Formats: sequence, structure tokens, C-alpha cells
Amino acid sequence: MVILIQCTDKVGLVAAIAGVLAAMDINIVAMREHVDTNDNLFFMRVVTAQDADATTVKQQLAEVLPPAADIKVNPKPQKKIIVLVTKEYHCLSDILIRNYFKTLQASVQCVIGNHATLQDICTRFDIPFHYISHEAKDKSVFEEELKGIIANYAADYLVLAKFMRILSPQFIENFPLKIINIHHSFLPAFIGANPYRQAFERGVKLIGATAHFVTNDLDEGPIIAQQIIPVNHSLTAAGMMKAGKEIETAVLAKALNMVLDDKVFVYGNKTIVFE
Amino acid sequence: MVILIQCTDKVGLVAAIAGVLAAMDINIVAMREHVDTNDNLFFMRVVTAQDADATTVKQQLAEVLPPAADIKVNPKPQKKIIVLVTKEYHCLSDILIRNYFKTLQASVQCVIGNHATLQDICTRFDIPFHYISHEAKDKSVFEEELKGIIANYAADYLVLAKFMRILSPQFIENFPLKIINIHHSFLPAFIGANPYRQAFERGVKLIGATAHFVTNDLDEGPIIAQQIIPVNHSLTAAGMMKAGKEIETAVLAKALNMVLDDKVFVYGNKTIVFE
Amino acid sequence: MVILIQCTDKVGLVAAIAGVLAAMDINIVAMREHVDTNDNLFFMRVVTAQDADATTVKQQLAEVLPPAADIKVNPKPQKKIIVLVTKEYHCLSDILIRNYFKTLQASVQCVIGNHATLQDICTRFDIPFHYISHEAKDKSVFEEELKGIIANYAADYLVLAKFMRILSPQFIENFPLKIINIHHSFLPAFIGANPYRQAFERGVKLIGATAHFVTNDLDEGPIIAQQIIPVNHSLTAAGMMKAGKEIETAVLAKALNMVLDDKVFVYGNKTIVFE
Amino acid sequence: MVILIQCTDKVGLVAAIAGVLAAMDINIVAMREHVDTNDNLFFMRVVTAQDADATTVKQQLAEVLPPAADIKVNPKPQKKIIVLVTKEYHCLSDILIRNYFKTLQASVQCVIGNHATLQDICTRFDIPFHYISHEAKDKSVFEEELKGIIANYAADYLVLAKFMRILSPQFIENFPLKIINIHHSFLPAFIGANPYRQAFERGVKLIGATAHFVTNDLDEGPIIAQQIIPVNHSLTAAGMMKAGKEIETAVLAKALNMVLDDKVFVYGNKTIVFE
Repeated sequence: MVILIQCTDKVGLVAAIAGVLAAMDINIVAMREHVDTNDNLFFMRVVTAQDADATTVKQQLAEVLPPAADIKVNPKPQKKIIVLVTKEYHCLSDILIRNYFKTLQASVQCVIGNHATLQDICTRFDIPFHYISHEAKDKSVFEEELKGIIANYAADYLVLAKFMRILSPQFIENFPLKIINIHHSFLPAFIGANPYRQAFERGVKLIGATAHFVTNDLDEGPIIAQQIIPVNHSLTAAGMMKAGKEIETAVLAKALNMVLDDKVFVYGNKTIVFE
Repeated sequence: MVILIQCTDKVGLVAAIAGVLAAMDINIVAMREHVDTNDNLFFMRVVTAQDADATTVKQQLAEVLPPAADIKVNPKPQKKIIVLVTKEYHCLSDILIRNYFKTLQASVQCVIGNHATLQDICTRFDIPFHYISHEAKDKSVFEEELKGIIANYAADYLVLAKFMRILSPQFIENFPLKIINIHHSFLPAFIGANPYRQAFERGVKLIGATAHFVTNDLDEGPIIAQQIIPVNHSLTAAGMMKAGKEIETAVLAKALNMVLDDKVFVYGNKTIVFE
Repeated sequence: MVILIQCTDKVGLVAAIAGVLAAMDINIVAMREHVDTNDNLFFMRVVTAQDADATTVKQQLAEVLPPAADIKVNPKPQKKIIVLVTKEYHCLSDILIRNYFKTLQASVQCVIGNHATLQDICTRFDIPFHYISHEAKDKSVFEEELKGIIANYAADYLVLAKFMRILSPQFIENFPLKIINIHHSFLPAFIGANPYRQAFERGVKLIGATAHFVTNDLDEGPIIAQQIIPVNHSLTAAGMMKAGKEIETAVLAKALNMVLDDKVFVYGNKTIVFE
Repeated sequence: MVILIQCTDKVGLVAAIAGVLAAMDINIVAMREHVDTNDNLFFMRVVTAQDADATTVKQQLAEVLPPAADIKVNPKPQKKIIVLVTKEYHCLSDILIRNYFKTLQASVQCVIGNHATLQDICTRFDIPFHYISHEAKDKSVFEEELKGIIANYAADYLVLAKFMRILSPQFIENFPLKIINIHHSFLPAFIGANPYRQAFERGVKLIGATAHFVTNDLDEGPIIAQQIIPVNHSLTAAGMMKAGKEIETAVLAKALNMVLDDKVFVYGNKTIVFE
């Protein structure tokens, strides 16, 4: 059983929570907690050896926790995701492979591309591909078409796997903390377009990638995972882009792993990741 | 307040421990636990916001824990260490600098060298240096001399900071889990002498360092920390040795940091490090 | 144009080689060299801006180089490979994806599995899959069957992508320096079976993977690439195995990239990799 | 012998350079080159087995290279440096230790502090310490005092080892590409003051450090070396600052190593580092 708790902090919370479980004869296998002392907030993730009725556990926990406590017991184990892409294959392919071999901890409902480039690879994996061009139409029209497709699936998350269109705040607010993006730089460096070009111009000695939740501010949402690789003068901007693909794939995979396994709390503009 | 607990596992341990603290109105700031399910063992490290009488806390915890529970409340905050060296300066210097600036979480009582090479650097930091040559004498005599010096100080740990003599089991058994060594390879690769030469001969693409507790079996004690750096064909064995010094210094520093901050449990031939 | 040279070292080699190219009005874009001073050997890889007739270049270089110089001009750009697998999908899938999107620098001729597990994924990519069970037959029979399949393709390399059978020296000698294996540990640590179990038992703080050429000695061939990830007490042997898959995939991908791009020289039991 | 060459690129440069050396019977041990194809520039660093008269070598190379070629033969092997500090000890201590044990490839002439905090550690190593307070005086006065001290030593480089004052363009222009700074973030992220506070607020999952040459634009000079370490939610801004010190020390050490060993070319706002 997995239990997630977020509430205001006070003395005795761990004892109260552990007491509820002990009284039900449930053994704790792993317990991770974080207290934000600035904001007096308490976060906990518990894994137990035994299972129990989720509603009962939640009720009993609610009785010992502060009034507005956010309690999740056994969150949906197998999430549903929709992947949005443009032309680059590396992140999508990694997701399709994990989906196919059932190690993604989610099932891919469909893929939406604003180019048709990646249609064939989806077809090979029997995943529906929807081609929605963004060309020759208003962004609002494009986004309505996206929403139309998305509405056909009960997706838990939208994954932007190198989707190279900027989504409007109007679109994003329909999916609060439900959109995960891979950005091809170690944010907050090189916000915006062409980060590899920017990195090349600046002469940095490392490049990176950042997976984050998408909020209204471009590239400013809560960061889930980041990683870098060293580079040097011998790489052109194109060479950096190529080298960066490996790390983009790895960082997005890790972020999805954490989110889909319910190890991520979002709080303000930050995440707490109980790896 | 820091509390360390090691005992057999059973349902309700976390509740029991947290309950004791809550009843004393003590707030938990951080709690790390590990259950070894193979051996049914429970390990916990708790940091609390408030302090309390250590004996009382220990007594009350003992009442709710299994009979043979090992409970430490507020372990000695500033440990005393003795450093053993040969000729290489990098690990010792790092320790002396941290000791001088009071960021070591320990105080260096003295340095013992089987060569006099590092006497001057110790003198510059007002740290007693004892030169005990190993030459022209039996190992047992050499070790008796070491023990004679060590006996003059109430040291909590002996740190082998590139001490290039192999200590006998007879010596080691006097200091169970109290000797920390830095080995210049990523154990268990390249056990024994000249690991950089071995690494060079084998043509590895990474070299490393391992900090571990010293037990009777050479290079076989519980590992505390390890790290590697990439290498390539352009490095000779001597070049690898030079590159390795940086990582030896870093790994020993990290291991000392963890041990001296009471974040390490030893169990069988392994460690649990609550970083 | 790519030029690879391996010969005994002497004064003036670089001048001689560069002189030949300059006389043909060929500009050098990148030049990497290594001199093994122990064995007096010279290795060089040159990339030029202009192309030229390979035979002419080779002839002219041979005239200025020591007698037995090994000179390769424009080695076959697109190699052919055969992949051998058992049940694990991660390395194979990565290769199939790169093959499909034409970024592998090779073309996969077929996949041979000693289990049928990975047949479907190959079929989805239109890659022939040959199921050769090793069960209920002598190793020599099994290997004859493998060789029978392999003989049908003109493969430049055999890639053991988590192929869990040990090949006999008799088999291996048919493919000298043509077999690339991914071993799931940072060799020379944990040679042989079950390295993750060994790593778990030893309590290491990092696990790794090694890609190497296969020679007669098990896990002892020239290392091409290695990488590690940190682990801790919270991982079981199974958890380490899972975490290790990511790095196995990455290390094999890197090794293939280097070998297929003709950046690897093998010399004795070591490699020179001009990354 | 070490030879550094920077000039416009053209066909035959390597042959010409290698030819000059071969004619003098000088063997090339290592040769690194980089061609910037955008700007048609050629960079080379050569290490030879034999020594020769520097003036002769330079003359003969000048005859075969483009007119304005910048040729350095056997640049000064042991540079002189002045270190500027404020209160933090880690970078300075590392430099003092390496200086003392003669592995810095430079000799520290003196240390200048705008606080007296680090006077004692310098005294222990017999290094002159000059305390120049910045308080209660105009920046121009402060900088004149700095220049007064600096003028007493024939220093090749000024090293800002956590010197927390911003130097004016008027000061900097006196030392073009002669000032090396360690900045406590992975530039260009978190330019300016309090990068750890900024990193904490942004919720990044990695923090870093950057060593760079100081030019008129704050934190915008050519980057020499960068490195990062992973962080998570459990670290406060102060915790990040503490963790960052290790990496600041390491990055500055590496940058100094590269610069003092004449492995760094500066070109525009970038560096070419022949590691």
C-alpha cells in the first residue's frame, strides 16, 4: 500500500500516522518525510507491507491529521498518458519501448504530432497517432484541435516529448500539473528557443536537460529532474544537440518514473522527489 | 537531538518510537529508516527539533523496543581522531585544513607517520606528529609502537589517510569498526598493492577510490563511500595515480563526514549510510 | 575522408603523414594521435575536409611510413551487425530504435535469440529473428547452429546485447575482435555470473557496466567503454539489476558508436578510443 | 618542449609545423589541434620529446605559418599568482596546500583579503597576506590600493578565490585575461549575487560552479571549467552553499591546472581547453 500525505506540520504527526497503521497491524516498509520549516508544511510517503481498505485507512488518518490534510491512499497504480511530439524520435521511442515491455508504469493512450514524422514508429507499436498540423491556423484553433483529441482519452498526464510548440496559458490551465515537459537545457540557463545554440555561443563546458511540470510561465514550472554531460570546444551547436539527445531521453525517463510511481509532491514552484 | 536505533523489526516500531517522542512534545525534523527484510532488521536515525535528557529518552525508547535494541541518544558530537600517513599529502592536508577551520566534525589528536615526510605540514597546524618507522623491525614491534602512541589519546577513530602499511589482524582487532581506510581503487576491483598499475594494465576506462572500515580481511571491510573518474589511453599508471588523488581526497572526506556525523550503521559487511 | 594508421613510432611521422595530405591539397579537419612510449607504437586517426582516391592515399602514405604500417583509408562507413540476445529487451531495443532511425552507423542484419522472448519486437521492426535454443544440446552443437545463421549474413560485428550464454574459445576465434559484449559490472570487479548479486553482497556504493571486445578469456577482453551509477543500501540485488539496465544500454550504445565510427584501436588487451 | 600556435587556418599547416620539427629531429609526443571552421582559425598545442632553442624554433615556425601567427615556445613553466579572498577558506586553502607541496604549477606570491579572516592560514604557510578593507572608501580607492599591492609582485595571474567584491571595468582592463574567478553557479544560470539562494528558490536539482576569465561583463567572461553536483529538496540554501564549496574548490583547481599548464586558448568569449 502506498500512502501520500501533505499537511501543515505539528508535533506528533509521525506518531499519529504510524499509530494508525500499527493499530491496523500494518507494517511500514519505507517511510520518507520532509518538513518545510519555512512554511510549516509536512510531506510524507509511506509504503506498507500489507494492503488494507483504502477508504478506511484514509478516514482513520484524516481523524489524526490537521483538518485540510491531503491524503492519498493507493493512488491509481497504472496511469494513462498522452505523448505530444514534433519530429525528434529519441524521447518518444524510449517511452514506446517501455510501454511495450510494460516497464513504464503507465500506458500510452495515443501520440499527437504536429508533424507526421513519427507516425510510423507509433503504428509499429499499435499506438494511435494523431497528426494535428499547427500550420496555417491560429494557435487557439490548433490548441482546440489538440484538446479535441485529448478529450477522447482519460489521460492522467500529457508528456511533451520534444514537442516544439509553445502552449498558451489558456491551454495549460486545463491541465494543472498534468503536463510534463523535457527542456533541452539545465534550467534556468538558456530559457527559450535554441538552447544548444545559446550554449555553444556562451562556450559552456556542460550541457543538460530538465524535466519539469508546465505552468503558465514558459520553462518556469516546478523542476522534477535534471542532468548534465560535459562538452568542450570540439562540439558545434549541432554536435551539442546530438549529444544532448541521450540526456534528454534519460532525464525524461527518470522524471516519468518518479511521477508515475507517485514519488513527487509539488509545492509552490518546487518539487519534493522521494527517490 | 540525534537518535540512532538498531533492532529486530516488527510491526509498529515507527509508531512506538514516534509515540515516545510525541508524548515528550518533541518534534521530529528528519527521520530515516531502513528495514532489511532478509534479516528482519530495523535501522533508524531521527533528528528532533527539541533536545531532552538523553538517559530519559533512551529509557523510554527501550521500553517500547525489542529487548536487545541498540539505542544511541545524542552520540558524542565532536569525535577525536588520529590520522596515520606515509608520504602522500593530499588526504592528510584536506583533513588538517577542515580540522583547522572547524568543519571536520572531529578534532585531530595527532598524526602518526611511518615516514617523516609530513611532519612539517602537521607542525604548521600545531598538530603533534609522531614518526614511527617500520623499517628494520618486526611488524609486531612496529604495531606495538603504534599502539603505544595511540594509547596516549582517547581517539574515537583511526583514519588511514594513505597509510601504506598493511596492519595485522592482531592490531585491527583492538579497534573494531574504528579504523577507516581510503583505498585507491573502486573495490572490489584491484584489491591489494598498486591498484593504479593494475588499472593501467587492464585498460579500464574509469578509476576510483573507496573509503571503508578496516576489518581483518585486507580491503574487504564494509564500504562507506566510493567514487570514480573517467580515464583513457592517454594516461600512464603514474598519470592515473595523480588523477586519482583528487578522488581519494573527496571520497575520504565524504566518508569521514558521514561517520563523524553519525549517519552510518554497520551491519555484517555492509554499511547503511543515511546521507 | 577518414584515415587510420598504426605503426612503430619514429621521429617525423606526423610531418610525413601531414605532408602527403598537404601535397594532395587535402585539409586536415581533425587529427588524433597516441604514442605508446613503452612499446614504441604510433596510432593516428585523421579526418580530412576533402575526399580522394583511397588507394592512392594509402599507397602514398605507405611510402613514408614504416614497413609494416597498418593503414586504413575510408573504412567501410556503414557496418553490418548481428545482435545476439536472451530475454532482456533494453539493449536490443535501443539498437533497434537507432537502426530504424538510421543513427546507429550500422545496419542490423538479424537478431539471434536463445529464447524466443524478443521475437515480436524484432518483427515489429522488420528485422529477421532466429530462435536457436541452447537447451538439450551440447554447446558445440548450439554454437554450430549459431555459426550457421551467422554465415548467411556478411556481418562486420556480432553484438552480445545481454546474451547470457558463455561462448567457447572455439567459437570466439572465428570472430577475432569482432564480438562486442556488454557486461553488467564495472570490470574487473564482479567477473562472471550474477554481478548484481555479487555487488549487493559486497555492499558497494556504485554499480556499473562495461562494453568490451570478447576474447578467449571470459570478461577479460579489451574494454571499450565503462560507466557507473551510485547505489545505496536501499537497493536489493533486483533493484540494482533494474537500475543497472539504464547504464548497460548507455554503455553499449557508446561503445558501438565509437567502434562503428572507426574511433577505436585495439592494441594488446587495451583499446585506444579517440572520442 | 611545449609549443602553442594560433593562426588563420589553411591547407598544410600540420604538415608545415610537423615538418619544421622533424627537420630538427624533434619527436612529437602529443599534438592537439582545433579548427574553428566558422572563423577559419587554427589552434595547436604540441609537446615534444626533445628540447631545442626556443627562438630558433619560433623563427622557423614563423616562416611556414601565416603572417600574424601567434607562436609560443616553452611558455614560462612556473607562473606567479596572487590570490584575492574574502572570508571563505576552501579555495584558498586548496591553493596554499598545492603551492606548499609544489603541485600547483605556480608559486603564490601573496594573498590579498578584504577581510583579515584568512591572514592566519597564510602566515602558517609563510605567504604574505595583505589586508585591504573595502569599507568606508570609494571602490576606486579600494582598487588603487589593490593595484598598489599587486604592483609589488610580478604576477602572471590574479586568482579570485571567493573574492566577494565586484571589480570595476577600469580595474579589470589592467589585467586582460589575467584574472581567473570561481563563480558559485553553473553559469549562465544564476548570474550575480546569492546564486545558492537563487538555486534554492528555483528548486533546481543540481548546483554547480564555474571558473572563468574575468572580463568587463560580470560573470560573462570565457568559461574554463564547470562542474555540478546533484541536490534535492532536503537542502536549504545554506545546505546548498555548503555542498557547493567542495565543487568550487575542485573546479577552480582544475581551471588553474589547465591555465598554468598552458592548455587553454582564449578566443572571443570562449576557451579551447586541450585537457
